[in-house]
Amino acid sequence: MDFSFDERTAELHEKLTDFMAEHIYPAEPVFDEQVAAQSDPWARPPVIEHLKQKAREAGLWNLFLPDPRFGGGLTNLQYAPLCELLGRSPHLAPEALNCAAPDTGNMELLADFGSTAQHERWLKPLLDGEIRSAFCMTEPDVASSDATNIATRITRDGEDYVINGRKWWSSGAMNPNCALFIVMGKTDPDADRHKQQSMICVPRDTPGITVKRGMHVFGYTDGSHGGHAEIVFENVRVPADHLIGAEGDGFAIAQARLGPGRIHHCMRLIGKAERALELMCRRVTERVAFGKPLADQGVVQDWIAESRVRIEQARLLVLKTAWLMDTVGNRGAHSEIQAIKIAVPSMTEWVIDKAIQAHGAAGVSQDTPLAFLWASTRTLRLADGPDEVHKASLARRELRKYRD
Amino acid sequence: MDFSFDERTAELHEKLTDFMAEHIYPAEPVFDEQVAAQSDPWARPPVIEHLKQKAREAGLWNLFLPDPRFGGGLTNLQYAPLCELLGRSPHLAPEALNCAAPDTGNMELLADFGSTAQHERWLKPLLDGEIRSAFCMTEPDVASSDATNIATRITRDGEDYVINGRKWWSSGAMNPNCALFIVMGKTDPDADRHKQQSMICVPRDTPGITVKRGMHVFGYTDGSHGGHAEIVFENVRVPADHLIGAEGDGFAIAQARLGPGRIHHCMRLIGKAERALELMCRRVTERVAFGKPLADQGVVQDWIAESRVRIEQARLLVLKTAWLMDTVGNRGAHSEIQAIKIAVPSMTEWVIDKAIQAHGAAGVSQDTPLAFLWASTRTLRLADGPDEVHKASLARRELRKYRD
Amino acid sequence: MDFSFDERTAELHEKLTDFMAEHIYPAEPVFDEQVAAQSDPWARPPVIEHLKQKAREAGLWNLFLPDPRFGGGLTNLQYAPLCELLGRSPHLAPEALNCAAPDTGNMELLADFGSTAQHERWLKPLLDGEIRSAFCMTEPDVASSDATNIATRITRDGEDYVINGRKWWSSGAMNPNCALFIVMGKTDPDADRHKQQSMICVPRDTPGITVKRGMHVFGYTDGSHGGHAEIVFENVRVPADHLIGAEGDGFAIAQARLGPGRIHHCMRLIGKAERALELMCRRVTERVAFGKPLADQGVVQDWIAESRVRIEQARLLVLKTAWLMDTVGNRGAHSEIQAIKIAVPSMTEWVIDKAIQAHGAAGVSQDTPLAFLWASTRTLRLADGPDEVHKASLARRELRKYRD
Amino acid sequence: MDFSFDERTAELHEKLTDFMAEHIYPAEPVFDEQVAAQSDPWARPPVIEHLKQKAREAGLWNLFLPDPRFGGGLTNLQYAPLCELLGRSPHLAPEALNCAAPDTGNMELLADFGSTAQHERWLKPLLDGEIRSAFCMTEPDVASSDATNIATRITRDGEDYVINGRKWWSSGAMNPNCALFIVMGKTDPDADRHKQQSMICVPRDTPGITVKRGMHVFGYTDGSHGGHAEIVFENVRVPADHLIGAEGDGFAIAQARLGPGRIHHCMRLIGKAERALELMCRRVTERVAFGKPLADQGVVQDWIAESRVRIEQARLLVLKTAWLMDTVGNRGAHSEIQAIKIAVPSMTEWVIDKAIQAHGAAGVSQDTPLAFLWASTRTLRLADGPDEVHKASLARRELRKYRD
Repeated sequence: MDFSFDERTAELHEKLTDFMAEHIYPAEPVFDEQVAAQSDPWARPPVIEHLKQKAREAGLWNLFLPDPRFGGGLTNLQYAPLCELLGRSPHLAPEALNCAAPDTGNMELLADFGSTAQHERWLKPLLDGEIRSAFCMTEPDVASSDATNIATRITRDGEDYVINGRKWWSSGAMNPNCALFIVMGKTDPDADRHKQQSMICVPRDTPGITVKRGMHVFGYTDGSHGGHAEIVFENVRVPADHLIGAEGDGFAIAQARLGPGRIHHCMRLIGKAERALELMCRRVTERVAFGKPLADQGVVQDWIAESRVRIEQARLLVLKTAWLMDTVGNRGAHSEIQAIKIAVPSMTEWVIDKAIQAHGAAGVSQDTPLAFLWASTRTLRLADGPDEVHKASLARRELRKYRD
Repeated sequence: MDFSFDERTAELHEKLTDFMAEHIYPAEPVFDEQVAAQSDPWARPPVIEHLKQKAREAGLWNLFLPDPRFGGGLTNLQYAPLCELLGRSPHLAPEALNCAAPDTGNMELLADFGSTAQHERWLKPLLDGEIRSAFCMTEPDVASSDATNIATRITRDGEDYVINGRKWWSSGAMNPNCALFIVMGKTDPDADRHKQQSMICVPRDTPGITVKRGMHVFGYTDGSHGGHAEIVFENVRVPADHLIGAEGDGFAIAQARLGPGRIHHCMRLIGKAERALELMCRRVTERVAFGKPLADQGVVQDWIAESRVRIEQARLLVLKTAWLMDTVGNRGAHSEIQAIKIAVPSMTEWVIDKAIQAHGAAGVSQDTPLAFLWASTRTLRLADGPDEVHKASLARRELRKYRD
Repeated sequence: MDFSFDERTAELHEKLTDFMAEHIYPAEPVFDEQVAAQSDPWARPPVIEHLKQKAREAGLWNLFLPDPRFGGGLTNLQYAPLCELLGRSPHLAPEALNCAAPDTGNMELLADFGSTAQHERWLKPLLDGEIRSAFCMTEPDVASSDATNIATRITRDGEDYVINGRKWWSSGAMNPNCALFIVMGKTDPDADRHKQQSMICVPRDTPGITVKRGMHVFGYTDGSHGGHAEIVFENVRVPADHLIGAEGDGFAIAQARLGPGRIHHCMRLIGKAERALELMCRRVTERVAFGKPLADQGVVQDWIAESRVRIEQARLLVLKTAWLMDTVGNRGAHSEIQAIKIAVPSMTEWVIDKAIQAHGAAGVSQDTPLAFLWASTRTLRLADGPDEVHKASLARRELRKYRD
Repeated sequence: MDFSFDERTAELHEKLTDFMAEHIYPAEPVFDEQVAAQSDPWARPPVIEHLKQKAREAGLWNLFLPDPRFGGGLTNLQYAPLCELLGRSPHLAPEALNCAAPDTGNMELLADFGSTAQHERWLKPLLDGEIRSAFCMTEPDVASSDATNIATRITRDGEDYVINGRKWWSSGAMNPNCALFIVMGKTDPDADRHKQQSMICVPRDTPGITVKRGMHVFGYTDGSHGGHAEIVFENVRVPADHLIGAEGDGFAIAQARLGPGRIHHCMRLIGKAERALELMCRRVTERVAFGKPLADQGVVQDWIAESRVRIEQARLLVLKTAWLMDTVGNRGAHSEIQAIKIAVPSMTEWVIDKAIQAHGAAGVSQDTPLAFLWASTRTLRLADGPDEVHKASLARRELRKYRD
């Protein structure tokens, strides 16, 4: 359980730190201006494409992908501190380095389970940052934390599959560049509980697809990143070879996708918390009230110390989880993945809340990244299963030791 | 300290409860549709004017105003349970009954301190709901919790005053109907600490005013209610009789305005919390996960019980404060006003957070009122002075008992 | 819902405030010295008998008892502020005024349900402060929060009842003055769920009773107040007329006893919190660290303000509950009694914890009342049913509004 | 930063785990019985001496001491998991292995700074477990978190030093076996702030010493471990060679002693939390209420999951701190030592509180170790400097990055 940086990590970490300073942070106000200036809420500000090119040139591209055939081939432990850095500017840096969800999960999934044809048609342009993709799993009418609830149907009909159902929170789906929907649905509702589901590639322009609307997150649409779409699939017909893996593999593929997805979220959340702490420290050092800098007030110092202590603990737990995933596999790290899913979003939410409070009204406004950071963080206390589901599961596992 | 409803309160409470059910709640989706359909983000959806007419017909109009010359003449204790009901639909009900901030505070201020000419020109159309107004006090560059920091200048020049400065979070100022800015600034920076400030009426179309932009609150603009503007005043010239009261009265007027403003916020916050609890209860009764309704889960029951217990305590403290304001005056109720300012926003935030969690992803979206309720509630932990300032002040007052 | 003091309350409140200052607080160090000096851990320090005499002379005696035939005949609302004062010195004042648990509950129970003979033999000397009593309900082997679990048997045998079972946490039973055990047990395990239990008077010197040991509470034995005994009843035989009420009445009598018992606890807890806040304020005013009084530190001010705000809210909820019990009865106030049982112990625990922290090591020691106050308060989060049971019950009642 | 067990640690960990199971846990009830049976509250139950012998035989002795000349020569990282195991039975295991405070700190101090004569006279019998010692630093009248406040005087007089002052919380001083007091006092009040203090060895039977009383901790005296004494030094005269190091070294020696002392506390606290979690899990698995095991209740599961998540994070932070102390020294690990001092006691307190609640009344009593564990843990939020002092210091260090 060695968390020190190896040589490659140290080198990439330094390079990425510089890249953030030189390209990403300066691009943040540019991004905001471009978004404010454009009339189409779903248009992508040109600065993103510019950053992508810079990142490719710098050799900072596809770092997330462990499979050396396609990407950087970093372990989770190597990727963790890099991903944390990306989290410091979560609406720019991940996309700039082609390390943004949901593409990351989709690329991994295609790399691991996709056919050669699927690699050629979708994985390659995704790896090249030419297209983007969406992952269509969550449904509005059922508790998605219980994956067996899924109601969308994928029915074999001759040489095709026909898809019917309603999805929402399909992130990225409103991006004009989004070319691929990976859809989870049931091929056999009568099979075993975890063999009913399948996953299938659906080109976004297939007839029968209606993108109804973008979901809001505390007033934000995430429009410039493709939003979070509600989508209706009505007799959407695709060739049978668009299925990923075999019929009934859907649940297993989803599980395989979730572990890395969750730890990536948590790595970024550490970075978000660090960014918020930095902003808080800067603010209280500069801001004077009642005759002294906010930094001299005991309550503010309490926030800063607590933030530091909580961040350190959370980071170590994320690193341990990454190390476990590398050494015993995602399955062996199941409890730890749940543990970070429980611990990290609420930690980051707490730190950002204090940073907001230290900023006064500016903290809830568009003049700092804090309010947006907060909204995306709060959401992670319920995305991919609410905290309560993970806690109950973790507790049952803990209790198993005492039951025999 | 009798908190029972008297006859008039009971009657109005019943009437308003019915009005909410018959007119306000059904108008909520209509409002959302009209907002979604309009291209101008600052346009006012027509449903509001319709509700205003209904409220006037029902005799539910200007209930907030204690001064019987102009309004309902209710005491704070009488108004509290009514204002709580308005808080259940905070973006519709207060405006529908002409009880929305910042007009309420502005109308009180004009009634108490304005000249007859000011009554005629601005108070009357405000009471009739024909125009709206903004209150321009907070400034971007200073800690507004320390009111003596204000940098805007109001300078006498012959028969006029000339105003220079920058304000932000001037709520309502982007409303096309907004006709009046009440501006706080310094007339004499060399006077005693609390005699430097004055307040003045500035017609919105006066030359020299630039409304720069609307501030966001966690992604929301509150656009359909006039937003929260940043405004630059550059050599804005108004006749000297636009001053409210005398030179140097500004601080005292602001203080007089703040007490009622804070308790109104707190009354509404009780209603917001009740609304969130109701939504949570409905959701968990209907939603099934892992084979049973969410309502059967222990953690959810814990949230509901805690919510009920916290709301009850907060409501009683608000009622006590209202009673004190009625009996010993705003000054005598100073500590209690601070106490509710500390206690109520964080209580309501807690309840809404749990209601959001119980709703899953729907809770952060536009499909329930919860995310918007949350954002406006969070903001009240820092608006009108952050919690920390009020706590420090309350503690010093408590400690005074032991220092002789 | 009028919480103002009426004339009688105001008069008693003033008299009791003076009595606390003149007699109770000065007796605290005397009590500690007498306890430290005596070799028998269960002996009663003589200062208590002295205080009892003073209280009788002052007309401050049996204030708790609502039944005017036997006591002061105060309503709950009248008694609440007096009981709060007693809570400021919880190990002296209640006993000094003959208002200490478990005697209070036992006296109420005998007054309401006891026979004339029971009144004569036990109620009279209890009211006179000549004997003390214990209430034997909780059992070690079952979850007592579910009263139907009780395993002790009370079996009719000719003219007698014979009692077998094991009880613990029978408070006061180790007091040499304790003459009466009121025992709850099952007379008919086959009857309806709530008709199986009966209650019976058992003279403490009846053969077959073994007082095994005194239970500790965080290291305290409460020895000078009769401790908390574990007691074995083995074929303990008492005449049949010692039964209180009829066979099967036990559950109903217990329920009747619980409501007042709980609100008395909560009234006293408000007083405990006030005492802790007072001690904290005195300490931080006097104590200097790093060059300034602790009172000038922001974190300490935060504690003080939060304490004041929490106490005020809790007190109002207790008063509302008292008023409800007076006007609609204990049954009608069921939810409110649960609400204060949930809210008040944890509030007081929080305040005392902060007061301890402000005292440093002195706070956990015998040099302030804080550590003992804390231990007795923490226990009330689980005595008479743990918080969690009350929360689940309160939540189900809240949810009932939405189920039909 | 490699936290894996090396071979030696793994071997010792296994051996100690077995030793705990075979000797320590079974000795807990024996210890309680022996304590209950003895009349002298300061007498040492014989089981301890028995355990010490067993530990020596097992080669589990003095593991704490990094200096290979005198002890096991383990690094902090090697000792951490062993010390955690000791914390599972904190009133038996540390003493049994001669790893109990304050002897550990005193032995380190003598090893590092003592003269050969001091090694011979005191260090040797301490290492052999023949005598015990006390550390006399804290004083009743000043805020000890600010070490420069110390008022005790150590005055040179010819060949002797003469000591005058009052100390309290001198742990172990009431142990009949305690032979040595290490006393901190001022030799030169006019020297530089951190050069005024010296440390000196004082044999316990030196004339002029009065042990006034034992301090209580929430009702506990820790009597069977030597208690926590208040001691008066009145013209206590010892030879000049009893001084440790040189005059003015006191502050530096105290600082050197504090780092290891704090991390040992934190290592043990992890073990305490694990023990509490184990007891909670066992209890809720066995205990049935309202028809199902407590373990099936959502709120209980929430406690268990939160406990697991919090313990894991805290342990990793302790390990990181240990690793830092080993690699960059105590000074380089200053912030991390503060961080664990802030994080770990409150974490453990939280876990124990939940374990108590799960046990109901048994949890606060002498029938489980929980109440005692809680009291000793709560105390660590203020011993060695209250949390607030460490937080303020940590925050200032964090803020330093942004000031220059």
